[in-house]
Amino acid sequence: MSLDKAVSKPHERLADHLAGSMDAVNTLIRARMASRHAPRIPEVTAHLVEAGGKRLRPMLTLATAELCGYQGEHHLRLAATVEFIHTATLLHDDVVDESGQRRGRPSANLLWDNKSSVLVGDYLFSRSFQLMVETGNLRVLDILANASATIAEGEVLQLTAAQDLATDEDVYLQVVRGKTAALFAAACQVGGVIAQAQEERVQALHDYGDALGVAFQIVDDLLDYQGQAQNTGKNVGDDFRERKLTLPVIKAVACADAQERAFWSRTIEKGRQEDGDLEHAIALLHKHGALEATRADALAWAERAKTALRTLPAHPLREMLIELADYVVARIN
Amino acid sequence: MSLDKAVSKPHERLADHLAGSMDAVNTLIRARMASRHAPRIPEVTAHLVEAGGKRLRPMLTLATAELCGYQGEHHLRLAATVEFIHTATLLHDDVVDESGQRRGRPSANLLWDNKSSVLVGDYLFSRSFQLMVETGNLRVLDILANASATIAEGEVLQLTAAQDLATDEDVYLQVVRGKTAALFAAACQVGGVIAQAQEERVQALHDYGDALGVAFQIVDDLLDYQGQAQNTGKNVGDDFRERKLTLPVIKAVACADAQERAFWSRTIEKGRQEDGDLEHAIALLHKHGALEATRADALAWAERAKTALRTLPAHPLREMLIELADYVVARIN
Repeated sequence: MSLDKAVSKPHERLADHLAGSMDAVNTLIRARMASRHAPRIPEVTAHLVEAGGKRLRPMLTLATAELCGYQGEHHLRLAATVEFIHTATLLHDDVVDESGQRRGRPSANLLWDNKSSVLVGDYLFSRSFQLMVETGNLRVLDILANASATIAEGEVLQLTAAQDLATDEDVYLQVVRGKTAALFAAACQVGGVIAQAQEERVQALHDYGDALGVAFQIVDDLLDYQGQAQNTGKNVGDDFRERKLTLPVIKAVACADAQERAFWSRTIEKGRQEDGDLEHAIALLHKHGALEATRADALAWAERAKTALRTLPAHPLREMLIELADYVVARIN
Repeated sequence: MSLDKAVSKPHERLADHLAGSMDAVNTLIRARMASRHAPRIPEVTAHLVEAGGKRLRPMLTLATAELCGYQGEHHLRLAATVEFIHTATLLHDDVVDESGQRRGRPSANLLWDNKSSVLVGDYLFSRSFQLMVETGNLRVLDILANASATIAEGEVLQLTAAQDLATDEDVYLQVVRGKTAALFAAACQVGGVIAQAQEERVQALHDYGDALGVAFQIVDDLLDYQGQAQNTGKNVGDDFRERKLTLPVIKAVACADAQERAFWSRTIEKGRQEDGDLEHAIALLHKHGALEATRADALAWAERAKTALRTLPAHPLREMLIELADYVVARIN
């Protein structure tokens, strides 16, 4: 047993520590995804919620609230809020990406239809909104409203930027902030706010979540070119086939000669892909050191996350959150 | 000029009276639909917002706030909030209904794509949320969060209920409350709340908006079977062809013999429609007095709206809102 503990992963140690609160959050999630009138709603939601995501975002809220000494119950509502926002964006993403898989299972838009995914996503977003209003904390509402707008803006930006070779690292970072980092940052920040932590601590929690989210997304993008399917649940080259201009490709395009540029334009911008193109793309990424540079960026963002947390007083949860940042990049280290 | 005024329609008189505030609301809408990073957002939104809807919902908020003596500026934010929520639901509805037209123009999902409609809808919903948080009024947030959940729940319910002959008038009313009446009711109610009106007045405004919204939707459903395209911008029979079980059909199904039931099952539930089916459907609606009964329901809801308002003190805006209820049903009277 103690051996199990010793080798468990940081997010599992965090989950162990937060198990009691997380049970309460899961109960709340199940209660609030119910619908008296429309049974389709809990069907679709349960498919996704019960599929066993890591619950990373609600754990961040529970951990930061406890780290700041919070004693009440509102952090449970905020954790459920954050998970509902995340689930709503997954449902809408699957429609937008025309995905067939999510968390290793057929996606909701395939099992039901796009209509159900759009409308149940809207319902969960409304439910998240009700939950946060119940905290009666206007600062928390402001943070989560702004995060929601950043998420939606990032998603729209990605629509137009993803297949445009002019997309540079600044635009990539805006998209990533929207896709991933905004909700990580808000999840951490509201934990501090609900605990009435000092302003510089709230800011440190925000900065931790933001940097953790950016690192998380960069790792995801990198593994798409060099991961192994058995470790990641993704197939190498999915992003390339879906013509997504992620960080490794942006770095390679920045170094491309005319012939290489034509290759990227054909495969990503125009989407005319042939046999052997993925292999050639990976060769170009290696040639320009793009994978190595992307890896260095992910590590730097994880370091930034840890640095932000170190301004907080020592606390077992602070150490677990620092380990979590290491864990996020461990898959590429 | 005075003649023009004399024959103008009630919603135009209301618009005249509220012109100054509505200009401010339109300025706010334009400012908030901007996006620094994603120009696709204002493109899609402007297409819909500038297409010239009647702005009925924001007018209800401005009118009820003024009617209750409100002096501040938050009613402008709430009016913009309500219009953003409405626009977001239109964008998502067009994806769900696979519509090709909206407000007499090609719908956004055709001009851009379903992805843009989903994500820009999400963005507008987030923006509406930011606007209402700026009022700092938790009661208002609670009302609008609940309305949003009712809207989304009604839309999901409609997905499963629309083509099911077991759908009765109670389920129809739940769908209509979600589709239309919840936002009308919230738009009216928050006007009273922001003005700190007495509780029974806030309730009266809610009841007015709810009944007005139900009347509005029933009229819409009725005109689909007996309107004239030049008056309504809709083609007779659109709901029938889209297999929507609206109030006239629900009433006719309730009186149907076995043969008629088989007809409705084939055309609405199974969607196997043939030439002459629409004419036969309309004949059945007449046979059972379903159109007349639907019309009577719409008038009764309009009457209920007016009765709710009459509990408020006399005020020119109270009279205009009473006239508005008459106007909503005038198209079928």
